Amino acid sequence: MSKVITPRGEDAARWYTDVVLRSELADYSPVKGCMVIRPQGYALWERIQGALDARFKETGHQNAYFPLFIPESFLHKEKAHVEGFSPELAVVTIGGGKELEEKLVVRPTSETIMYSMFAKWIRSYRDLPLLLNQWSNVVRWEMRTRLFLRTTEFLWQEGHTAHATEPEAEAETLKILDLYYDFAHNQMALPVLKGLKSEQEKFAGALRTYCIEALMQDGKALQAGTSHNLGQNFSKVFDVKFQNREGGTEHVWQTSWGVSTRLIGALVLGHGDDAGLILPPALAPTQIVVVPIWKTDEEKSTVRQTVEKLIDSLAPHVRIHADLREEVSPGFKFNEWELKGVPLRIELGPRDLAKGQVMVASRLDRRKEPVPLGELVVKLPELLAQFQRSLYDRALKFRNDNTRPAGTYSEFKEQIETLGGFFEAYWCRNSQCETKIKEETKATIRCIPLDGQDGEGACLFCGSLSRTRVILARAY
Amino acid sequence: MSKVITPRGEDAARWYTDVVLRSELADYSPVKGCMVIRPQGYALWERIQGALDARFKETGHQNAYFPLFIPESFLHKEKAHVEGFSPELAVVTIGGGKELEEKLVVRPTSETIMYSMFAKWIRSYRDLPLLLNQWSNVVRWEMRTRLFLRTTEFLWQEGHTAHATEPEAEAETLKILDLYYDFAHNQMALPVLKGLKSEQEKFAGALRTYCIEALMQDGKALQAGTSHNLGQNFSKVFDVKFQNREGGTEHVWQTSWGVSTRLIGALVLGHGDDAGLILPPALAPTQIVVVPIWKTDEEKSTVRQTVEKLIDSLAPHVRIHADLREEVSPGFKFNEWELKGVPLRIELGPRDLAKGQVMVASRLDRRKEPVPLGELVVKLPELLAQFQRSLYDRALKFRNDNTRPAGTYSEFKEQIETLGGFFEAYWCRNSQCETKIKEETKATIRCIPLDGQDGEGACLFCGSLSRTRVILARAY
Repeated sequence: MSKVITPRGEDAARWYTDVVLRSELADYSPVKGCMVIRPQGYALWERIQGALDARFKETGHQNAYFPLFIPESFLHKEKAHVEGFSPELAVVTIGGGKELEEKLVVRPTSETIMYSMFAKWIRSYRDLPLLLNQWSNVVRWEMRTRLFLRTTEFLWQEGHTAHATEPEAEAETLKILDLYYDFAHNQMALPVLKGLKSEQEKFAGALRTYCIEALMQDGKALQAGTSHNLGQNFSKVFDVKFQNREGGTEHVWQTSWGVSTRLIGALVLGHGDDAGLILPPALAPTQIVVVPIWKTDEEKSTVRQTVEKLIDSLAPHVRIHADLREEVSPGFKFNEWELKGVPLRIELGPRDLAKGQVMVASRLDRRKEPVPLGELVVKLPELLAQFQRSLYDRALKFRNDNTRPAGTYSEFKEQIETLGGFFEAYWCRNSQCETKIKEETKATIRCIPLDGQDGEGACLFCGSLSRTRVILARAY
Repeated sequence: MSKVITPRGEDAARWYTDVVLRSELADYSPVKGCMVIRPQGYALWERIQGALDARFKETGHQNAYFPLFIPESFLHKEKAHVEGFSPELAVVTIGGGKELEEKLVVRPTSETIMYSMFAKWIRSYRDLPLLLNQWSNVVRWEMRTRLFLRTTEFLWQEGHTAHATEPEAEAETLKILDLYYDFAHNQMALPVLKGLKSEQEKFAGALRTYCIEALMQDGKALQAGTSHNLGQNFSKVFDVKFQNREGGTEHVWQTSWGVSTRLIGALVLGHGDDAGLILPPALAPTQIVVVPIWKTDEEKSTVRQTVEKLIDSLAPHVRIHADLREEVSPGFKFNEWELKGVPLRIELGPRDLAKGQVMVASRLDRRKEPVPLGELVVKLPELLAQFQRSLYDRALKFRNDNTRPAGTYSEFKEQIETLGGFFEAYWCRNSQCETKIKEETKATIRCIPLDGQDGEGACLFCGSLSRTRVILARAY
């Protein structure tokens, strides 16, 4: 089974595709650039949705649903926005057998269609803040696609809020950034940097874009979520106004923010190995698989009875599955569940039973330990929590080991090629330097980190004294 | 507040639209035929999804996600299917700024795109049954739309399964029909008929379509869910084959089934009144609203403290919300929450507090009763269960009162106009009779009920002796 995966050291891109396809997270579809999310992948997405949705609701956001189609004229209202998205649009020109009078764009994001409604709904400061979120599909016509990481259609959530003041909008933008950060750390087991995007990298139509950036095991960065302070850019063009407490009229201050099914790609690239996926227990649809072992019919009967009792007693506490297939061997099952990234495996055969124990194997370090049957209900949640921590610690160590000062520009150019990873540097905030670096090294400014470690140094490209510390990397 | 709703007796269509808009379930969008599902409506959809999704998973189905776009040629493969859907398609002809070589249809339903993948995944009888479900948006270009009931884009679930034998496919089709029936009765508080569609009314591409049909308070029928036995119609054109136990090759037997956001329209039409929505407690996002009453600041402080304690103690048991707004009066709040259909209202003022009690008002019969504070945690769940039963009983009585034998054709023609409702009749299974009835009365054969009450009688239209008992009605 594991032979079907190309070793990462041999070809990292093929390794990724092999893992996604063989673990049945997704498959290619007959529609160019679109993929099928298979049950294994969708169950993971449901876990991601569940964890985020609970956080959104706890912080006062409500879900809603807006149309898939956007009149073409709407996109043209905000200049930067249309320039950013125009090259990527899928356009409906025929409806019900007739040419449409106004073409309809399949939403690449929903600012324009949503804010046309906000203009209708918001009248007074009492209607603010308006805190909405939408779980939906979006379409961006991509020339070069990769499963989960860049697909023409993808699933995501997009939050859209309106506030009475600029500080409130900024506070919301940062609150969501923290929420994403917390989710990445605690659920995804991925350390991420919080930072601000450069003008060049910010969202088309935003005042400021904040992001969380993760480092993948191949040394490339992956933007895992963005939170935009939109200022009044959209409220002015869509005329979203409210009467303030003093009776005057003002435009609202807005934010938008999102994460997508790309997070599944981040889990693969961030944690996987040559045997396949490694899923964090907090998100794994199946946390523990039980593989029974028997030779004789008598053994089979005893072992199966124990497995059934085990599942009954453990199912209320952990997400556990018993693999009772008879047409494949235990070894085949071990490989298959390793490939699918299930954190813990319980092996249960006649010899273990005789000792009143099972063997528990970890997908992370491959270690096995015996656990007495009676202790499983206490021990398994502990092992899962420990797995979650170890997975995070491993990813953090990797990131720390692969974050380097950029040194001189020529050192940087060499190291980004040979070592990859995050590079710390200073930047003069001139977009020409940024463009040159990108052209010459394929590295981009991932973010201006919000970790408060300010200072000053020479701009990586032009050498002029700069106070802006940035993180550079090649990115997905 | 309630004045903003047109009385149903005055104009049933306007009543419906007023209720949907004023209760903030949905709003019109700037895109023709598409609506915005507002937080109140979406929260209801989330409850519907949650209840159904749990049932799908309990019966072994897994969720997945397939592309929004379908190559035009795919739809043409199944003849009846393309004929049924062609007039309703939205078509993408431009992608990434270029004319597409093959046009892409925005999915009106996903049989064709899904089964092209099934052909790739299914190899052996061991891969069967394949039991998938998808929650998604679909688009059918509609000329005359109504909020929730008929919109160009809507949200739904579509189940798609593949089986080794014809009886297994038929069993699945009926299992899902029962699941829908159970959901309608127990969650939606709507009695529905289970039945078979006529050839003319069946799904484009199906062998047989089963449905659940509900009767709305205006005497019109509403198809609330469908379950199709597709036979081998699609597996033959998409070449979905498997190797059977004997080593031979066969085409799979398939089913598909779905319910949509139209169910929200059914809740409005099935239970609402001139004051607005009435939601079944099993699905109501808010089951109980607390409206505090005070005059002095001292009263306010005492009342609010009690409300807070109340919410803390009750929130783990019921979905409860305290309306603490100060800018509107209690009377205004009463009307607003009645409009939004919240089943129970707790009124809590200084006089009640002095007696250690609250008043609990029912949205259904408007009765109020005092309940001692200490008994709420036991009494409220009881009242909610009783509300759910009463709502169902009321709907059942309405349906019984409005189900009539059709009598002669001329009696039927008169009564369908003056009384509406369900009519029982016999039908000779000739589609010409069916068409004539539809043309002359706007009534359709809603279903051939599966209630086992067979018999024989004269065909309603041609009078010939018939053994097929049908239910006729005008329908949404």
